[in-house]
Amino acid sequence: MADARVNALMEKIVSLCKRRGFIYQSSEIYGGIGGFWDYGPLGAELKRNVKDLWWRTLVHEREDVAGLEATIIMAPQIWKASGHVDTFSDPMVDCKTCQGRFRADQLDDIPCPQRPSKMVSQCEGEKTEARPFNLMFETNVGPLKDAASVAYLRPETAQAIFVQFKNVLETSRQRVPFGIAQIGKAFRNEVTPRNFTFRSREFEQMELEFFIRPDEVIEAICGRVATVAEGSWQGEPQPDWGWEVWHKYWVEQRLRFYESIGLPRATLKEYWQAPEELAHYARATVDILFTFPFSKRDARGELIGEELEGIAARSDFDLSQHQRFSGKAMTVFDEELKAAWAKLEPGRQTELARRYAEARQQYLTRMAATPEEAEQAAAQARADAEALAKGSYVPHVIEPSAGVDRLILALITHAYAEDEAPDDKGKLEKRVVMRFHPRIAPVKVAVFPLLKNRPELVAKAREVRDLLRPLMTVFYDDAGAIGRRYRRQDEAGTPFGITIDFDTLGEKGPELKDTVTLRDRDSMKQERIPIHELPARLLSQVR
Amino acid sequence: MADARVNALMEKIVSLCKRRGFIYQSSEIYGGIGGFWDYGPLGAELKRNVKDLWWRTLVHEREDVAGLEATIIMAPQIWKASGHVDTFSDPMVDCKTCQGRFRADQLDDIPCPQRPSKMVSQCEGEKTEARPFNLMFETNVGPLKDAASVAYLRPETAQAIFVQFKNVLETSRQRVPFGIAQIGKAFRNEVTPRNFTFRSREFEQMELEFFIRPDEVIEAICGRVATVAEGSWQGEPQPDWGWEVWHKYWVEQRLRFYESIGLPRATLKEYWQAPEELAHYARATVDILFTFPFSKRDARGELIGEELEGIAARSDFDLSQHQRFSGKAMTVFDEELKAAWAKLEPGRQTELARRYAEARQQYLTRMAATPEEAEQAAAQARADAEALAKGSYVPHVIEPSAGVDRLILALITHAYAEDEAPDDKGKLEKRVVMRFHPRIAPVKVAVFPLLKNRPELVAKAREVRDLLRPLMTVFYDDAGAIGRRYRRQDEAGTPFGITIDFDTLGEKGPELKDTVTLRDRDSMKQERIPIHELPARLLSQVR
Repeated sequence: MADARVNALMEKIVSLCKRRGFIYQSSEIYGGIGGFWDYGPLGAELKRNVKDLWWRTLVHEREDVAGLEATIIMAPQIWKASGHVDTFSDPMVDCKTCQGRFRADQLDDIPCPQRPSKMVSQCEGEKTEARPFNLMFETNVGPLKDAASVAYLRPETAQAIFVQFKNVLETSRQRVPFGIAQIGKAFRNEVTPRNFTFRSREFEQMELEFFIRPDEVIEAICGRVATVAEGSWQGEPQPDWGWEVWHKYWVEQRLRFYESIGLPRATLKEYWQAPEELAHYARATVDILFTFPFSKRDARGELIGEELEGIAARSDFDLSQHQRFSGKAMTVFDEELKAAWAKLEPGRQTELARRYAEARQQYLTRMAATPEEAEQAAAQARADAEALAKGSYVPHVIEPSAGVDRLILALITHAYAEDEAPDDKGKLEKRVVMRFHPRIAPVKVAVFPLLKNRPELVAKAREVRDLLRPLMTVFYDDAGAIGRRYRRQDEAGTPFGITIDFDTLGEKGPELKDTVTLRDRDSMKQERIPIHELPARLLSQVR
Repeated sequence: MADARVNALMEKIVSLCKRRGFIYQSSEIYGGIGGFWDYGPLGAELKRNVKDLWWRTLVHEREDVAGLEATIIMAPQIWKASGHVDTFSDPMVDCKTCQGRFRADQLDDIPCPQRPSKMVSQCEGEKTEARPFNLMFETNVGPLKDAASVAYLRPETAQAIFVQFKNVLETSRQRVPFGIAQIGKAFRNEVTPRNFTFRSREFEQMELEFFIRPDEVIEAICGRVATVAEGSWQGEPQPDWGWEVWHKYWVEQRLRFYESIGLPRATLKEYWQAPEELAHYARATVDILFTFPFSKRDARGELIGEELEGIAARSDFDLSQHQRFSGKAMTVFDEELKAAWAKLEPGRQTELARRYAEARQQYLTRMAATPEEAEQAAAQARADAEALAKGSYVPHVIEPSAGVDRLILALITHAYAEDEAPDDKGKLEKRVVMRFHPRIAPVKVAVFPLLKNRPELVAKAREVRDLLRPLMTVFYDDAGAIGRRYRRQDEAGTPFGITIDFDTLGEKGPELKDTVTLRDRDSMKQERIPIHELPARLLSQVR
């Protein structure tokens, strides 16, 4: 899309979000605050639905995932262990003349605050070298403001899961492989929040950490490790799955989730990160991309999508880091491994132990700063391999990590459509319709008495409303012409509309008595249906 | 209860919370962080259920309440307008000798960090005068750390509702009287977090701001204002309700909510604040109190409860403050008022306008610091009364504000019970049972195949699990003796247990085929019930 059309479309979407109560600027009456957005009545319902479905799919409908709800402020050592204190930063340049601070890679794009006709890179202000600026929001816990009381707003929900891994393992009767799921707010002090809610400073994540056996353990127990090429990742989890199959499995599961809430596969791209793009601990990472109206084109003219979710195979890096920093064992004891190991041929034992020790040493050596530490690392790796033979190891992890707000924005931009609909006199007029999947639509059904000044119509309409309300969100509307009421619900994305008219009251004869018209938002087709059939009919689509 | 028994009970509860995965200490492997608690798998479900029921009751089942989800970090001016910047503080004393900071009212209770045998009030350290210490967590938004970038973590969710009042009003098709509901995290840098999760630094609130017409408006429209004595607050809202009836109505609604999730009225106390206890803007405040094991006795030996929720009639203070600080009108236009006003006798108009102007002046004068401002206040009050005659005013508000975490703790301590149950050999043994109301129980039903090594039993049990899982949370357990499995679910608070045995398979004859035993957690009674009756039977109790 050309930039002007893109901007026009985004403007329409942003304007509809405000006008219909999906999304408002935070603190709007005070001029707003950059990078913070509030969800209005419809937006709050939409977000609730998406989060509930994620939770239901992962926690309630599976037996191998447990839920967690941890705090936003945690012990600051956690962010030392995770690497965020040292490396979660953007390079920034300070201008000694205007006191401004700018991202080093954006000096050519930002106008000088004092001489806006020039860019910062061209102005005369004296600039510092680029220095790292940490993106974590900082605060102080307790009555004293000093270095010892510094704490951070979590920049991701994942670390809480690693930190509570042992507690969950010990209290939930799960065994590896199993996962821990969490939904919650996270904060990043982005230098340039942008693209509406896509990159905000306060946002919500839905993260799963799925803990698996190291491949050497699978080999010891099953004799082999299944490969992706064999295709088993498309079915139910199997004991011989190593990290590659589990990783592919979770990519597939997450794509199915997006399909189930109304983002077809054709709207999503799998981007497999190239080896040089991977974080040092990651074995593979897939980004699930969605093309927004503001997405850019690459050199070949292809639209580049934006990341909705990353699915990373993170090895045993995270748990090992917390083991190292907290001094608490993050190992599991695996009865099956112990039994299987004892039955292995000595040569096989030696080979598996060697490979495992190598992997451990690779991790431990990377963390070592001095030759002494490197020596200790080698000794530790040997000890880890000995522990493995006794059934003990640090689990590996697959992490599907999704951003709620950017998903909501994807769902909104995907749902937005303009077409034509007849007005009350049958004349075609432009309509805006939000084609949300019924499962996530903020309101499932609207109930309309044809006329608000006819008590029998109103009474019957309220009866229908009360019949459906315990089962789904219902909006009751008796104001204005029926066409106008439809139009309002189209913009809200309500998939079904029910009109109670004189036929419902039996005024045209007994055969239509207690039937209503059920209108479909997308096709605008109407059909006559008995009231008592409504619950089952609607539930089958909104659940 | 004597203190020792109280402590023993709380210790048992805290230990069960950890052991069964209800509540863990945040960042436990790093030694914890004071005043922060995580919810484990069972706790997260319990909390979700309570929050969902609150939302369903207020937002989905009513037509006069809209939902909102605002950010935790908002424009800092909001906390100036709300009074939090200036007055949300504890008086603190610094010790120049040990650098410690202590709450001025606790100097007699806190041991000196350097000489723990003495209390701070008795030690020799040189202390400052008491100075206010603000309880809001502070951070900086954007790349610069200076006064202009200071922002706060919200100490309550309410203010976001006031700030977005006009947006919600304009986009949700609500009219006064109506409410805005929000659930979300809030933060207070408590000096001494205590009593397990009761007073924590990070917590969650469920707040409703219900906006109503000022009494003068009711009088103009209805000719009179209904009184509490007439008792109408027990029924459906009526147009002639003023703030007193609305306030009483919401106290009643909230009590009914607590009853519906398993806290009987007898466990709750209504505490009506005395006039001298009220905040200066409040007309009435009721605290709903619950007695925890750690609750203290008053001078007469009566147990003092702890506040679960406060229901305050806050006049038009909040919206007026934001109108004043933001310069944006927080008024509504009320067609009915305008029409009614025109029909009033002139004497009546004058009297209502005078009373309204008095109330406005009272508010405005209190906010005025100088004689000029006081003069302006009087002029503004007259202008407000003139606007009233044209149908415009700032709504008043009733605020039911509940703490989620303390409610969860109340539900847990209320549910905790010890009694006796037969073991697998029929011998009575002690059991711990969490008697949660089925509606909030983390797991609704457990499904047990009698034996795990009989494929027919397992297959049938999985069939039952799959039948129920789309409808409620199900736990499948095939490990250990059946009595032990019951006991585990009793501790988790699972209200129903279903056992699939040989009768289910029809081995004792066709009449018991496809029936199961349904066990009730509290009575431990078992009954035989056909599988196909399970969904309706269980749903009627867990919804």
